Amino acid sequence: MSIQELYDQVLEMYREKTVLNQVAGLVGWDYETMMPNKAVEQRGGMMAFLSKLEHQMSTDPKLGELLDSIEGSDDYSGLSDIERRNILLVRRTYDKSTKIPVELVVERSKLSATAIDVWQKAKENNDWKLFEPYLEKMVALMKKTAHHLDAEKDPYNVLLDFFEPGMDMDQYDTLFAELRDGTIDLINKINNSSVEVNRDLISKKVSTPIQEKLMDELISVIGYDMNGGRLDVAAHPFTGGPGYDDVRITTRYDEYDFASSFFSVAHEGGHGIYEQFVSPDYRYQPIGEACSMGMHESQSRFFENIICRSPGFWKFFFPKFKESTAGIYDDLDFDKFLRAINVVRSSKIRVEADEVTYNLHIILRYEIERDLINDRIKVSEIPEVWNRMTKEYLGIDIESDSEGALQDIHWCDGAFGYFPTYSLGNIYGAQFLNTLEKEMPDWEDKVKNGDIKSIRLWLNEKVHHEGNLYDPADLVEKIAGEKPNVKYLLNYLNNKYSSLYKL
Amino acid sequence: MSIQELYDQVLEMYREKTVLNQVAGLVGWDYETMMPNKAVEQRGGMMAFLSKLEHQMSTDPKLGELLDSIEGSDDYSGLSDIERRNILLVRRTYDKSTKIPVELVVERSKLSATAIDVWQKAKENNDWKLFEPYLEKMVALMKKTAHHLDAEKDPYNVLLDFFEPGMDMDQYDTLFAELRDGTIDLINKINNSSVEVNRDLISKKVSTPIQEKLMDELISVIGYDMNGGRLDVAAHPFTGGPGYDDVRITTRYDEYDFASSFFSVAHEGGHGIYEQFVSPDYRYQPIGEACSMGMHESQSRFFENIICRSPGFWKFFFPKFKESTAGIYDDLDFDKFLRAINVVRSSKIRVEADEVTYNLHIILRYEIERDLINDRIKVSEIPEVWNRMTKEYLGIDIESDSEGALQDIHWCDGAFGYFPTYSLGNIYGAQFLNTLEKEMPDWEDKVKNGDIKSIRLWLNEKVHHEGNLYDPADLVEKIAGEKPNVKYLLNYLNNKYSSLYKL
Repeated sequence: MSIQELYDQVLEMYREKTVLNQVAGLVGWDYETMMPNKAVEQRGGMMAFLSKLEHQMSTDPKLGELLDSIEGSDDYSGLSDIERRNILLVRRTYDKSTKIPVELVVERSKLSATAIDVWQKAKENNDWKLFEPYLEKMVALMKKTAHHLDAEKDPYNVLLDFFEPGMDMDQYDTLFAELRDGTIDLINKINNSSVEVNRDLISKKVSTPIQEKLMDELISVIGYDMNGGRLDVAAHPFTGGPGYDDVRITTRYDEYDFASSFFSVAHEGGHGIYEQFVSPDYRYQPIGEACSMGMHESQSRFFENIICRSPGFWKFFFPKFKESTAGIYDDLDFDKFLRAINVVRSSKIRVEADEVTYNLHIILRYEIERDLINDRIKVSEIPEVWNRMTKEYLGIDIESDSEGALQDIHWCDGAFGYFPTYSLGNIYGAQFLNTLEKEMPDWEDKVKNGDIKSIRLWLNEKVHHEGNLYDPADLVEKIAGEKPNVKYLLNYLNNKYSSLYKL
Repeated sequence: MSIQELYDQVLEMYREKTVLNQVAGLVGWDYETMMPNKAVEQRGGMMAFLSKLEHQMSTDPKLGELLDSIEGSDDYSGLSDIERRNILLVRRTYDKSTKIPVELVVERSKLSATAIDVWQKAKENNDWKLFEPYLEKMVALMKKTAHHLDAEKDPYNVLLDFFEPGMDMDQYDTLFAELRDGTIDLINKINNSSVEVNRDLISKKVSTPIQEKLMDELISVIGYDMNGGRLDVAAHPFTGGPGYDDVRITTRYDEYDFASSFFSVAHEGGHGIYEQFVSPDYRYQPIGEACSMGMHESQSRFFENIICRSPGFWKFFFPKFKESTAGIYDDLDFDKFLRAINVVRSSKIRVEADEVTYNLHIILRYEIERDLINDRIKVSEIPEVWNRMTKEYLGIDIESDSEGALQDIHWCDGAFGYFPTYSLGNIYGAQFLNTLEKEMPDWEDKVKNGDIKSIRLWLNEKVHHEGNLYDPADLVEKIAGEKPNVKYLLNYLNNKYSSLYKL
């Protein structure tokens, strides 16, 4: 068989797995949005069936043989760059799927189900000790998993690379040290500012139907395509569905906090736009997927924070907002409003944190994860370390682990290495902003005039269209001219908040 | 391997296929209700993938070997009645799936897609000649299909049995001749009645939100379980979704015809209740499916017509209706309302027909299908035959084939043998009503008091719980004491309409 025929077979197998993933994506979306409550167990059976199929396809020995034949072929270099990238990406997934023994996969999935259950109870009862043995098992299991993936490498580096290809502790340590120090400096300045912010100004009741109309306007302004998507309600906002021509976003409505749904739609809209605008030419190929978790987060946060919390955006949207809310906010002052949606205030809970303090929550988790996987701290020591670091970084006292080390679900599933990608997204995003400023110097004027489309098209071209052609750091370098660099994020934050808080 | 082990393997294969069908059911439901319009083509790929899997599972040679071993085993009679029924049902499906050559399946699915397209154009342009060659091909293809299924039997009998196990032309001919004559008699009497019915009385505007609330009440009264279901909007109302604990119904709203959505919800609710109340013990086994198309239709029509269009039901529901519609219908007279929702009026279009004339639409189609498959008439002669019979049975002149032989989609797909199951449902339903009257003499008082639950529980026990334990005629006999018999339907219709029209 010619190398082209081998390649076509690999792509055909990938295409079929993509269609299966579309089905699983829809079943998962429905689970979170539409499913009647009686169907939980039955849906579990449907999802397990699809997972089994996915595992069979991902570990099909025929795929391994095809990859071996292609990589070992004398004609390998005859493949195009794109073809070689596709083969590399299939190889990565194949290795990840086959190197981890099935027993370990099953064990993790079982442990994870139990751990989530126990974690919920532990969180309710502020009982870290209850959760401890399960987390200990999960740490051991993930170390074992990392060992199977690459016995030569530091296990946490293996996990970091799993979530963000190409990233390791050295890079994160450097980036996060600078980000931490710069952020703490900025927070100190803000705390000393004489500007007072009243968050209550924006907590007047806005009924769900009115909020829904606001969301329609927001969606149309940022350019998420409703012809290839939907907006529904879910307990925890997410972006999902089959993908490509059917990317679905979700939110939830709090009638006394319209900002919560507004910025969650901007955030999920950013994720959705990324998925909708990967080049159609790359569909059903590995390069047709988004680049990485961090890159995805860069897009959601670009829309949520850099665009939709900016003064320029509200120059345009504030009158619309006042009109839509039917008189409720007629007296609201523009500057006070802008500060209310951009208030910086250290808090205990990551998911409620603002754009500035958020990264400290992430860095804290990163440092704990890193030391945990590297045996520098024990699971039993986490609450103490957590509370000490929260005090040190955020100046906050944690009185109950429910609001501290027990607040997040991620570790129940063994997702060590996931948290840092959130801040990476902020870092990438600021670098893109810096490039945008150079390439489209009037971008802020455009935003002021409601022309978000120009910026969306720019992101489409630079980030979204590219799909998974490059590893994240390479894509950042291609767009911004240098590898991930915290400087731009700190500049952006310092500029924005110096102005808001008159620093 | 013991026969029990062989049996368990068959059941395990059936279980897996059931889960796959749940997934396909959800994907199909979403296609009709939620899918963004851009995703049509992509969704086609997802559905084709699931069909391919279903075909693989249904024709797995391992399944054939297991069935052969079980049926040929000396211990076969050692299996319980239920186990033997399960094996029989798997055998039926396996034979249907394997006897038809794949090429024929593919050809039908391609021809069907084209035929639907052409049919839509033909209907729009009143151009039977355009549709003719495609229908001719489909007739030939379905005859070939029937021949593969059973070369010994008359091809239309094979198709009839396909849709309603155990039924054939002899039985339908007898049933339908009596039903036709009795119905024509009744219509003549109604046409001579001095009672005038004003359908316009119920065409005042009822906004969609108010109709939605009405539907919630209706659903709760008839006992369709919203904890294991949903009601959504679809262009053509249907019952679907994964099944078991997740059975979803749909309707559509016309603000100037609340009755349209009301009775479609009662109808789909009947289908939904059937699916929801098959015995949980039978789930994931062949006996856990509904008995037949005709039996399904008997349940939807029982709720729609026998219960929800009855005077007793409205005794209870009329005040609720008036209250819900906020004054719009305050002046409406009870008797006039009852006649308006039960008006008998011959018309051209089957889906708009009332409870009495409906069966004539079906019988007409049955007779044409039968003669078509048996070469007694040609496709080119259909419009002429159609128009002649419509005049003869319904006294109506068809002026355009769009309103005549081109009105239904069913034949595009080669579903010859499907139409007659609709009237069979009416026949079964009236027999169940007759039995109910004997076993629960005060059933009408219960309905008048809003206690539909007692009747639903009776149907649950008699029909729904039984799943697919019996072929339809046997289930009818078990419940009603005799095989399908038209007498009860004619009695029911004569009684009901004699009273309404003062005959």
